[in-house]
Amino acid sequence: MRVLGIDPGLRTLGWGVIEAEGSRLRHVANGLCQTASGGDLATRLLSLYRQLSEVVERHAPDVAAVEQTFVNKDAVATLKLGQARAIALLVPAQFGLEVGEYAPNQVKKTVVGVGHADKRQVEHMVLMQLPGCKIAGSDAADALAIAICHAHQSGGRRLKVVA
Amino acid sequence: MRVLGIDPGLRTLGWGVIEAEGSRLRHVANGLCQTASGGDLATRLLSLYRQLSEVVERHAPDVAAVEQTFVNKDAVATLKLGQARAIALLVPAQFGLEVGEYAPNQVKKTVVGVGHADKRQVEHMVLMQLPGCKIAGSDAADALAIAICHAHQSGGRRLKVVA
Repeated sequence: MRVLGIDPGLRTLGWGVIEAEGSRLRHVANGLCQTASGGDLATRLLSLYRQLSEVVERHAPDVAAVEQTFVNKDAVATLKLGQARAIALLVPAQFGLEVGEYAPNQVKKTVVGVGHADKRQVEHMVLMQLPGCKIAGSDAADALAIAICHAHQSGGRRLKVVA
Repeated sequence: MRVLGIDPGLRTLGWGVIEAEGSRLRHVANGLCQTASGGDLATRLLSLYRQLSEVVERHAPDVAAVEQTFVNKDAVATLKLGQARAIALLVPAQFGLEVGEYAPNQVKKTVVGVGHADKRQVEHMVLMQLPGCKIAGSDAADALAIAICHAHQSGGRRLKVVA
């Protein structure tokens, strides 16, 4: 099973693809989709859409997993993130993939063992579980963590889509 | 100039297409794209994307205009609306259309004359300006109002994309 993990963001969207065979994991690729903060929103969303579509085409995952969005007090930030997240959900669905959603705490708990791990811990544990992989940035590390979480959660079982 | 107006929403997205020749407006079509509230988010966004793409293909607008999102205190609602709005911005951009954005007050001020008009007033003025048109619902009326606003704002001038 090939899993695409996505950490959504308008300026930087992290992605990571792993292969899971039972409990064995293997790194395939990871990277960042970026948009210039000066551009208009429609153009940025289209750019994200195209970059992410290319990732799905190139790496042909079987399933996708996306981080659930924090609803925080900054409504403008929430709105921006929601718009980027729509692209992260749309693109895999368009390729016929099931899309799982995981809360950040659930991802950290699965990968690090505690729900409130910091970015360095997450990156460290991702590298431990995917030896030899080069991480493109902290958003890509988060995306790989989401993919690892999905692989662990689904195990050999039929994947459940959490909406 | 053929203008597509979009009033974004996850459950119901309103759309309306008008033709503007100088100050003369003509109704082309309007309708609603709807998704079932029970479905998972990725599937709903994909459904919106497909329905709206079909509208653009069928009615071939030259430009699009989308209502700016209210950032309100209900963060969950803001997030949902943001996700629907991403689709409303993405689809026209994918067809190479410029996408204008207008605040709700600006739309009402242009169409009704005051910034705080209620839904009935908006619908009434839309019918006055597009005689003979049958409106599919209040979200479609709002979408037609956005299209009218865009036609008035841009007049004969080059359209400006407001990001």
